[in-house]
Amino acid sequence: MDKDTIAAISTPIGEGAIGIVRLSGDEAIEFVNPLFDGKDLTTVESHTIHYGRLIDPVTEEMIEEVMVTVMIGPKTFTTENVVEINCHGGLASVNRILEYVLTRGARLAEPGEFTKRAFLNGRIDLSQAEAVMDLIRAKTDKAMNVALKQLDGKLSKLVTTLRQKLIETVAHVEVNIDYPEYDDVEEMTNNMLREKTEEVAVEVEKLLSMARQGKILREGIATAIIGRPNVGKSSLLNALVQETKAIVTDIPGTTRDVIEEYVNIKGIPLRLVDTAGIRETEDIVEKIGVERSRQMLKESDLILLVLNNGEVLSDQDRQLFEAAKGLEYIVIVNKTDLEQKLDIDEVKQLAGDKKIITTALIEDKGINELEDAIAATFFAGDIDSGDLTYVSNVRHIQLLQQTLNVLEDANQAIDANMPIDLVQIDVTRAWELLGEIIGDTVQDSLIDQLFSQFCLGK
Amino acid sequence: MDKDTIAAISTPIGEGAIGIVRLSGDEAIEFVNPLFDGKDLTTVESHTIHYGRLIDPVTEEMIEEVMVTVMIGPKTFTTENVVEINCHGGLASVNRILEYVLTRGARLAEPGEFTKRAFLNGRIDLSQAEAVMDLIRAKTDKAMNVALKQLDGKLSKLVTTLRQKLIETVAHVEVNIDYPEYDDVEEMTNNMLREKTEEVAVEVEKLLSMARQGKILREGIATAIIGRPNVGKSSLLNALVQETKAIVTDIPGTTRDVIEEYVNIKGIPLRLVDTAGIRETEDIVEKIGVERSRQMLKESDLILLVLNNGEVLSDQDRQLFEAAKGLEYIVIVNKTDLEQKLDIDEVKQLAGDKKIITTALIEDKGINELEDAIAATFFAGDIDSGDLTYVSNVRHIQLLQQTLNVLEDANQAIDANMPIDLVQIDVTRAWELLGEIIGDTVQDSLIDQLFSQFCLGK
Repeated sequence: MDKDTIAAISTPIGEGAIGIVRLSGDEAIEFVNPLFDGKDLTTVESHTIHYGRLIDPVTEEMIEEVMVTVMIGPKTFTTENVVEINCHGGLASVNRILEYVLTRGARLAEPGEFTKRAFLNGRIDLSQAEAVMDLIRAKTDKAMNVALKQLDGKLSKLVTTLRQKLIETVAHVEVNIDYPEYDDVEEMTNNMLREKTEEVAVEVEKLLSMARQGKILREGIATAIIGRPNVGKSSLLNALVQETKAIVTDIPGTTRDVIEEYVNIKGIPLRLVDTAGIRETEDIVEKIGVERSRQMLKESDLILLVLNNGEVLSDQDRQLFEAAKGLEYIVIVNKTDLEQKLDIDEVKQLAGDKKIITTALIEDKGINELEDAIAATFFAGDIDSGDLTYVSNVRHIQLLQQTLNVLEDANQAIDANMPIDLVQIDVTRAWELLGEIIGDTVQDSLIDQLFSQFCLGK
Repeated sequence: MDKDTIAAISTPIGEGAIGIVRLSGDEAIEFVNPLFDGKDLTTVESHTIHYGRLIDPVTEEMIEEVMVTVMIGPKTFTTENVVEINCHGGLASVNRILEYVLTRGARLAEPGEFTKRAFLNGRIDLSQAEAVMDLIRAKTDKAMNVALKQLDGKLSKLVTTLRQKLIETVAHVEVNIDYPEYDDVEEMTNNMLREKTEEVAVEVEKLLSMARQGKILREGIATAIIGRPNVGKSSLLNALVQETKAIVTDIPGTTRDVIEEYVNIKGIPLRLVDTAGIRETEDIVEKIGVERSRQMLKESDLILLVLNNGEVLSDQDRQLFEAAKGLEYIVIVNKTDLEQKLDIDEVKQLAGDKKIITTALIEDKGINELEDAIAATFFAGDIDSGDLTYVSNVRHIQLLQQTLNVLEDANQAIDANMPIDLVQIDVTRAWELLGEIIGDTVQDSLIDQLFSQFCLGK
């Protein structure tokens, strides 16, 4: 049953010129063939595309005018036989074809099941499968580059190399213990072990140091705009959305209310939090209440704290600084077109080492400077995603962090002259943790959970 | 320049497993080949698909991992050479590829330009091109069937036959006049002319009689829900949306505010007007004011007038009946779970020959009956789209109506013994009008305008 014929709509839902219903399974071609009025698909060559009509073999009614792509495994996405039915875009068309193949006995693919099969059939590893999803969800070019590198197997190769080092070390140690050539075998072994674990730890640290950038490129900077009523929060939001190319996303499967708004700041996706609230009312601080505000702030990567240059600093403003304490924020002194009443010295004192940007949003002034400040806050120097920036996934970051911790435990154990087999347990654990990244040592339940977050049809 | 390489994203915009950037033009294959790291696309067979990477030939940077379909004209959608670049779905991926091919010299396709080329290159006629768009926009299966029949050329064939009859008649008449065989040539000619124009008129009338159904299947029944506050308009809306499979559509290119909601009532798309207003507040009658209400009603194909069974009929209710006068409406007496206070006899009197449905929406009662009543209002007897239901487009309906008028003029002229060349002018005009349906006798400006309503990438 593992390779039964699964089917799903693989193009985004909506109106478009082309829609695709994809099928995969050992019998996929034989399954589609009787429904297809055109060439005999069971005899065509692999990777060919054929014009014809999808018909009901019983009633001979036409289902749709289609182009059918036949791809014979194992050189396919899933490594199984794959048939892609290309039809006129639009909801009715893809829905009709999907419904039709399901009534004829195909099974509706679970979210991510095509990619899961690619993983289970050994064509890609788990980190590559995750990269497939990242690629689809990428909000900017730079985010896409990170995912492409991961899909390309760069992370997999490095992780595999590190694991190889660890496992060889363990093997070597065992041989040394069983067949000692020298008297001081214990010290020798300890030194060698320490050297190797250090080596791996350094590499893992290097990966982790780049991961923050990767994570931001992947997920965007969760950004909250705060400020008293009438300081210009809406104007700021609109300026960011209009200046840059706004990327508005409807999150599939959720209600229309929770639309997230992304803006592209020099290649970095900025995810604007609670934009609906800001658009609807300027009185966000008052409206949502202090508790919810604080929660929102804590979940943000970046806070844009807006002040009004034309008014004296109020206690409410000071409370906002208090709320932002310990978090990443940029102060925006807006309305520099108005006569200055704001005590800028007090603002500087409150802001400490945080950046202060002055804007006159009504005159379109200061947005560029703000964008530079945002970019500089998250990417010191060059934003360009260096070659090492291919760790972006929280799961991977956590596993790397755990690996690092375990390796440090191992080193401490060595330094404390603990029995070698205890050290070995740590090293083996590091090997396992790294294996979880590429899906080599990973629980089925985790795999199911990971793929369930995929979109339908992939 | 006519067949320069054009490019567009051909899959719907959004997150999906597969995205496609389509290119068409005489040089499309040569254009893509240097960007493709894989097989030499200029030497592969037509209708084959190839795995590879899209690379920047200068920097050798990878743009995306892709599958490229090569289709050599004339057996393609546009009859030109067509290349489809299949990539990982998602905005960043298709945007990057599109941007890339545009910077390399491809031209962004205008909306509908692929289909326009198919039309200009003679592969399909105008009514078939319009059917392509209808197919994409179809909201239900039945709407799709109407479009499929039209795409299949059923309308084209019938129109062509009718035009043939008219043109032969004209030719015949001319021969008779120039070379009279009999003395009573004038009477003979008149009789023959009348017979032929009658014959065509009957066919056109038959098409028109089915066109109302076609139009409704294509565009949906614009439906307004009206009633005093608290009679259950929101409940009705929710019941319709939940009972049936709701089809929610974001209209591309417009703001998020004007989301239209479609529900599928026994295969008929019901387009619910101003659902946002209903969802937000029950006080729609009061809120939007009498003027806007009346406008909304006039633009509706169907009004659902909701009354509260638990309250006596108010003057406001009576005003709603007044407003609905002369329009198509169904009365819904809701809340039959409450003690009846509504004077049902007065309601019957006000409703006249309109249907009255009783519901207890809170107990999910009466929705089925309502759906039956809606279906029966628009499709007496069988809803199944008969073989003649392939006229659905307002443009076609208007042209058929004009054709009918001109043919009637011709008949009157014959009956009044007007000079035969005056009659000929009418018949020739009828021939021209029918020609506009299939795009044979049609202005360039109209063609441009029609295709500009297409979606991008088709």
